[in-house]
Amino acid sequence: MTASMKLPARASAKPVTAADFDIETDIVVVGGGAGGLASALFARWEGNEVVLLEKAPELGGTTRKAAFWYWVPNNKAMQALGIADPKPDCIRYMARLARPERYVAGHPTFGLDPWEYAMCEAFYDNASTATELLAEKGALEYRHCPDVPDYWAEFGEDKAPKGRVLLPKGAKDSMSDGGEVAIRTMSATARRHGIEIRTGMRVQRLTRGDDGAVNGVQASDIDGRLTTVRARKAVIFASGGFTHDAEMRRNFLAAPVFGGCAAVSNEGDFVRIGAAAGGQLRNMNYAWMCPIVLEKALNRDPGLIGTFSPSGDSMIYVDRQGRRVTNEKLAYNESAQAFFQWDAAKGEYPNLVLFAIWDQRSQDHSASDEYGRFIVPPGADDAHVVKADTLEGLSVGIAERLARHADNIGGLGLSADFAASLGATIDRFNGFAESGRDLDFRRGERPVEQLFNGPVAEPAGKNPTMYPIAKSGPFYAALLSGGNLDTKGGPKTSPQGQVLDDEDQPIPGLYGVGNCVASASARAYWAGGGTLGPILAYAYLAARRAHLEPIKTAVGKIAAE
Amino acid sequence: MTASMKLPARASAKPVTAADFDIETDIVVVGGGAGGLASALFARWEGNEVVLLEKAPELGGTTRKAAFWYWVPNNKAMQALGIADPKPDCIRYMARLARPERYVAGHPTFGLDPWEYAMCEAFYDNASTATELLAEKGALEYRHCPDVPDYWAEFGEDKAPKGRVLLPKGAKDSMSDGGEVAIRTMSATARRHGIEIRTGMRVQRLTRGDDGAVNGVQASDIDGRLTTVRARKAVIFASGGFTHDAEMRRNFLAAPVFGGCAAVSNEGDFVRIGAAAGGQLRNMNYAWMCPIVLEKALNRDPGLIGTFSPSGDSMIYVDRQGRRVTNEKLAYNESAQAFFQWDAAKGEYPNLVLFAIWDQRSQDHSASDEYGRFIVPPGADDAHVVKADTLEGLSVGIAERLARHADNIGGLGLSADFAASLGATIDRFNGFAESGRDLDFRRGERPVEQLFNGPVAEPAGKNPTMYPIAKSGPFYAALLSGGNLDTKGGPKTSPQGQVLDDEDQPIPGLYGVGNCVASASARAYWAGGGTLGPILAYAYLAARRAHLEPIKTAVGKIAAE
Repeated sequence: MTASMKLPARASAKPVTAADFDIETDIVVVGGGAGGLASALFARWEGNEVVLLEKAPELGGTTRKAAFWYWVPNNKAMQALGIADPKPDCIRYMARLARPERYVAGHPTFGLDPWEYAMCEAFYDNASTATELLAEKGALEYRHCPDVPDYWAEFGEDKAPKGRVLLPKGAKDSMSDGGEVAIRTMSATARRHGIEIRTGMRVQRLTRGDDGAVNGVQASDIDGRLTTVRARKAVIFASGGFTHDAEMRRNFLAAPVFGGCAAVSNEGDFVRIGAAAGGQLRNMNYAWMCPIVLEKALNRDPGLIGTFSPSGDSMIYVDRQGRRVTNEKLAYNESAQAFFQWDAAKGEYPNLVLFAIWDQRSQDHSASDEYGRFIVPPGADDAHVVKADTLEGLSVGIAERLARHADNIGGLGLSADFAASLGATIDRFNGFAESGRDLDFRRGERPVEQLFNGPVAEPAGKNPTMYPIAKSGPFYAALLSGGNLDTKGGPKTSPQGQVLDDEDQPIPGLYGVGNCVASASARAYWAGGGTLGPILAYAYLAARRAHLEPIKTAVGKIAAE
Repeated sequence: MTASMKLPARASAKPVTAADFDIETDIVVVGGGAGGLASALFARWEGNEVVLLEKAPELGGTTRKAAFWYWVPNNKAMQALGIADPKPDCIRYMARLARPERYVAGHPTFGLDPWEYAMCEAFYDNASTATELLAEKGALEYRHCPDVPDYWAEFGEDKAPKGRVLLPKGAKDSMSDGGEVAIRTMSATARRHGIEIRTGMRVQRLTRGDDGAVNGVQASDIDGRLTTVRARKAVIFASGGFTHDAEMRRNFLAAPVFGGCAAVSNEGDFVRIGAAAGGQLRNMNYAWMCPIVLEKALNRDPGLIGTFSPSGDSMIYVDRQGRRVTNEKLAYNESAQAFFQWDAAKGEYPNLVLFAIWDQRSQDHSASDEYGRFIVPPGADDAHVVKADTLEGLSVGIAERLARHADNIGGLGLSADFAASLGATIDRFNGFAESGRDLDFRRGERPVEQLFNGPVAEPAGKNPTMYPIAKSGPFYAALLSGGNLDTKGGPKTSPQGQVLDDEDQPIPGLYGVGNCVASASARAYWAGGGTLGPILAYAYLAARRAHLEPIKTAVGKIAAE
């Protein structure tokens, strides 16, 4: 996928009654990432004819860019190792993080609302079944990662802090390319099993029959040609979130993000199509959050990967006044929050852009082109890196970048004493690095922080996430901001993926899975794979429920609504 | 309006084709607060027959609870006094606060998107015209408040920091009862001018004609009887926000609020009805924010008023560890943000509940039953007040309240050393009060902080917002949380109030005004009356545009969509 990738243009999402269909099938799946491919496979394995439509020129969506860890509670490999993961404990952990402001350990639903609880329960009950079936069929074999901790492994609520993470078999040791592997094996299986795949097809709207039931879709290609596809049983959307619709981001998300690393085709299509069909929008405020390299987001770089791993031990983040304001090694979903602090007296977001600063040690030993690291090795695209021999020079370089982007970042600039302040900040940090204890932000004290620390030079510091920053240059910097991987709000569904109308009744024939529908995780990011584990479970449930749908009428005038 | 007030039950918002109407009129207005009454009056003055439907048993909505300051840029009274308020400067001020992360002083739209800019411009251009017309007709006469500052009067962008605020003529000197006055005069004028008003009528859904245009509404009363009202020209919604739909709050708002002080009938009706008609939802993340008394919100007290005025000079807010964490005197929209700070390492909202602490001095001299003050005079409802002779006793009392509400506030409790820490905090604050300078949070340094300081004992401190807290009891406390006045997201409209479909085209016959539709203010609260000033301007524009609508067909089968 490249910057010049063209997508079919957007048109009205208003449902239509179609009298003529170009193609017929049992189940139409919209989207060719993990959610769509899994839905298509599960539907096919129930004996259905399936057509999968993907807007982009190739399959993969956001999944292709992902490491594709997948979080599967009480999975078979855990069971084999004797790692207990009882349902109430697991849901309690999920609730603790999804709705911390309402979490009560002893409450019947742990403070979740009934829908959220039912969704979490369905995930727990079906994730392992779904992933085992994908493995058995050869679509997605896995290796177990028994040493990977959950992102809040230190919580008393987490009774199985390690063992829930699976990874596509065949991914490399660094575990960063699971998405490529998964798309390859899942799409090969889909083709082998007779699923019809059409790329470059943008689903614009639903078609409905006499009875109001959804009976297909209309899609257009890059030349504007319309194809109407009849779905005898159901349409399952798995078309991703609204990361690349800037207007939706501004009007729904809880934080002012500049973008994210979802596939550029994630433009909120199902927010529009699902709402137009009468679906209730839910969880529109939260997203899968992650720091991002600001300039890649502003340039709409389709290769943008979220900063999963803030690598470098001799590396800090500072604000425009040259001060540290956060623990740089927090898990990405939490680290992103530092950028959105609001100064209620000045009426501004003082940390909207932060600056990662590192020295030659980190450049030499912590560079990598994996996990969205901003410290990149020689030969990699380093257009986002500022380099200078002195802190003063670095300040000048940073200020130039800020000026270049002033129109997009509210004119944010450095304070006059940035370089001097940065020097003092480094001195203080270096003291922490020497003692191994960060008295300001407790960097590196939690399991997840070590998980994402990345490679460091040996010997490492007492605390392997910290090492004194050199007294002399060269120094390096990158501009960071808060962003998201993808959003996680959209039409509300039943645990079986049925899109629900404003009275919580299923809209006949309409299903959704993944980031295009409302997630019950609310603000939580439970663990690595907390996105993909649920997606596979819900794809399984949606496909099996869609299989049971009655055959929809194909033609006729619109019925009274 | 009382706690036992019953509202007609909610039913499906799905539009219908109605063949028989019970009532016919030109324009139906939904909602009997300021937005609805103003829309009805402006429509009537254009010569239309108007029916106004209000869900509650009486008119007034949230307006009745409001002080009803109204912010009118470049108003006639300013002009008479020679106070200049040029349009570009005024919109620049609005943009600076609406989208601080994108604000650029020299940008053609100051960083606003084109829709936001057009909405702000339409407000500026029409607010004074609208309010003058209301005054001339005797519906809403005003007195000018030339001494009331905007909430960010100290900003260089604010070229007219005083003079934009009007108040209903006849409101008392304390300026707190403008809403009562406005509802009285506006509804009397509406009746006098022949507007048909029906209360206890909950609009459930729209009706549409052959051509898909909106041609009326269906409403039900407390007994479930359905009335179908034909609107020959248009329906104008002014039915308020979604403050009292807890599920919507959790799934849209940027912050975990426990409620707000909108009329209890503000249940997000138009989010559902407007979306079902194909309207795009916008600005769903932001709200008109305000600290609230936690227990009144949890008890769903219909008399809840937001804490506009955090009165008391010998008064502080502390967290569960007994420490100050914010400037208590910030304007309410900003003060509310302190409660939503996120601790990214602990996974919790540490300030979800804060505790206002005061002594006998503030109790004796700063008590009032106006502006939502939590320090209330003898005889007023003080169920939310904890009183004790010592700080230790106060801690015990606070802890009891927290335990009582544990299931609703995530089990939040006091730290073991709360009382001791509170004592140290008071000592530090008292030093600030003596010097007149708050070295931690700069309390009282901005014009808006003095505006809402409320009455204090004479002689006041050097800084009238601070006075040393007594060394001995009695002490008082109240539990506070962040809340909202009302929400400000909903279907997007044109500046003329036309609800826009997903291609930004007006939905024929459908209009919206006020908190039930998307506000272009985004996160801003520009000044006192920053809610009502725009509402009156947009009501004027919507009513005049609705007047021009063609007559809609009344019956027939549904047309192809």
